[in-house]
Amino acid sequence: MDNFRFYAPTDIRFGENRLSDELADVLNTYGKKVLLVYGGGSIKKNGLYDTVVEILRANQNTFVELSGVEPNPRVETVRQGIELCRENDVEVILAVGGGSTIDCAKVVAAGFYSEKDAWDLVLERRSYSGEALPIVTILTLAATGSEMNSGAVISNLAVNQKLGVGGTSMIPKVSFLDPKNTFTVPKNQTAAGSADILSHLIENYFKKTEGTDVQDSVAEGLMRTVIKNCPIAMQEPENYDARANLMWSSSLALNGLTGSGKTGAWSCHPMEHELSAFYDITHGVGLAILTPRWMEYVLSEATVDKFVQFARNVWGITESDKKIAAKKGIKALYEFFESCGIPMTLPEVGIGEEKLKVMAKQAVDHSTIKVNAYVPLDCQDVETIYRKSLVKMTF
Amino acid sequence: MDNFRFYAPTDIRFGENRLSDELADVLNTYGKKVLLVYGGGSIKKNGLYDTVVEILRANQNTFVELSGVEPNPRVETVRQGIELCRENDVEVILAVGGGSTIDCAKVVAAGFYSEKDAWDLVLERRSYSGEALPIVTILTLAATGSEMNSGAVISNLAVNQKLGVGGTSMIPKVSFLDPKNTFTVPKNQTAAGSADILSHLIENYFKKTEGTDVQDSVAEGLMRTVIKNCPIAMQEPENYDARANLMWSSSLALNGLTGSGKTGAWSCHPMEHELSAFYDITHGVGLAILTPRWMEYVLSEATVDKFVQFARNVWGITESDKKIAAKKGIKALYEFFESCGIPMTLPEVGIGEEKLKVMAKQAVDHSTIKVNAYVPLDCQDVETIYRKSLVKMTF
Repeated sequence: MDNFRFYAPTDIRFGENRLSDELADVLNTYGKKVLLVYGGGSIKKNGLYDTVVEILRANQNTFVELSGVEPNPRVETVRQGIELCRENDVEVILAVGGGSTIDCAKVVAAGFYSEKDAWDLVLERRSYSGEALPIVTILTLAATGSEMNSGAVISNLAVNQKLGVGGTSMIPKVSFLDPKNTFTVPKNQTAAGSADILSHLIENYFKKTEGTDVQDSVAEGLMRTVIKNCPIAMQEPENYDARANLMWSSSLALNGLTGSGKTGAWSCHPMEHELSAFYDITHGVGLAILTPRWMEYVLSEATVDKFVQFARNVWGITESDKKIAAKKGIKALYEFFESCGIPMTLPEVGIGEEKLKVMAKQAVDHSTIKVNAYVPLDCQDVETIYRKSLVKMTF
Repeated sequence: MDNFRFYAPTDIRFGENRLSDELADVLNTYGKKVLLVYGGGSIKKNGLYDTVVEILRANQNTFVELSGVEPNPRVETVRQGIELCRENDVEVILAVGGGSTIDCAKVVAAGFYSEKDAWDLVLERRSYSGEALPIVTILTLAATGSEMNSGAVISNLAVNQKLGVGGTSMIPKVSFLDPKNTFTVPKNQTAAGSADILSHLIENYFKKTEGTDVQDSVAEGLMRTVIKNCPIAMQEPENYDARANLMWSSSLALNGLTGSGKTGAWSCHPMEHELSAFYDITHGVGLAILTPRWMEYVLSEATVDKFVQFARNVWGITESDKKIAAKKGIKALYEFFESCGIPMTLPEVGIGEEKLKVMAKQAVDHSTIKVNAYVPLDCQDVETIYRKSLVKMTF
């Protein structure tokens, strides 16, 4: 196990019907002037917007709104949010939505204190050490884990870049996780969110560091939890426990619990970020497409044991031949994504072979996968994995 | 899943050789006047005391010492610590030791601000809402999880009481977890600490709330981690990864991760606290003795499914008959403790039948096991479980 720092101080308020009793008190800790951040308006349809606004009014908050945050949040929206905070002396940011909304809020929170342009701040990547406005979140999608960590991903379509940024001050102070707020999430987004959670667990699972039984066994447990509960939530959108297990998995998959103590770069996220940056596709879908191809590509004598562990402990595969067991685990993952209705080839999400080479180059340039991924990948490797994603996998 | 709050803000600095670079900075956040708390002197034998004192001197800290904290920390020691803090205007408490040392530090930290006598503060139990001095810990034993939570257990032998107390302000600010600081922990304490960790996981696992796949699968993973790594650490005391996995498991077993979202009282801890209160035995040993008897006692048609899950997911038992599988799981746990060299009957730790009845009464009086344990237990039930612990189990 490698040395690590684990710091996940977000105060999680999990469960139903907590906002009316707790939200006002939480906000009052930080101030009365609020920036309310949300996305495309689903919270207006399902009533959450009205609930929140009613609480803010009863609590005598003054608030301004940053709405329409994109699924891959744009730097232009971040700039707009920073402007709103400055013009209105905002004291606390309330993000109501999924990971994109929360990510946007995080960079607005930091940008408020920064003299740099928002994109220059993103270019600092994971080392932002300045202040940030306090952030409170109300989560509406089980996916990114942004509600309990320091990271954010921002897109700049002008330069076809989608980059991660983060720092301790950007960790949400309090996050309200009410599974009922995900009852209205449609099937395809439930599946894509679950794929995102699984991908975070898989990225952390396949790292070179050994002797990490805690991290690996926790990751295996969370993977089994997602694999069990995603289909239930898709079939029964108002199944509280299924939504609750997905929601809490999303936070734990990326709050440091399964990644701390293991060194190395993630593999599939850097490759996916280029797909989103160039084609603006759903992040979780891109990950679901790439991950099984990546697994097949890096499976070798050197990596087979970890893949066998994945097959046995996550999928219950009892096959004794190591190579066959490993392949069965990859097949199980692919078929799980298929069974969730996720489009499993690039052409199905509108991506052809035109830009594969340039995306592959950027995936390597914008990350460290060439030097310290589980299996280091150069431009040619990434392009090959993209090409394999053009057609269905066969087993 | 039930509603819950998860709040584990302790900044964990995990890994080897961090103190010289980080301890001074951490302490300086809170002040220069330190109360150094430790136990029976093992840190003087293994050099950790010297390391810490050297850092304190180089950092120009003034410090006073509260040493000799007992394995079941006494209220008299807490009073002494409070006095030292007041006399010396202490600003931060540095606890170097295992759970007992940290527990003692927590109640000293709270007592500093309280006008009540320390025992009256303990009698507030889990609802302490006042201030506390900041606590920094350097952990030397993988066991109680106190390094990352709000609870403490204090003994008052004058009245044969051992009670839990806690509050948010008592959560350690920073905890240094260096597995090397547990290399010198002897076999019997390694085993007892592991039994304590397993017990925390088991207490949280066997609760009535359903639909808790996250909590249960994480608990199963951590149980498997302890079961794998405890024997390795006993055989190879300087096996870094084995010590690391036990250490990190200890924190995660009781930081809310596996218990949040599940309602109800623990069963074995209240029964064990009376053994320790009356006989001052090692807590983990008492838990190891009681737990398999408790399991056998509460196994029924109503509970068999959970015991089957325990047998399958923790011990890999594939037996298809549910009742037999459940019993095999209990047997596996008992034999695991035996294989770790833990004395597995009460007489082996000096407890006869004399006080079983009065201890049973107190176990019920000092807890809520009679109303909301996994299977509610009255005085007669507890006495029966104690009596079963007088002789070896047979399967």
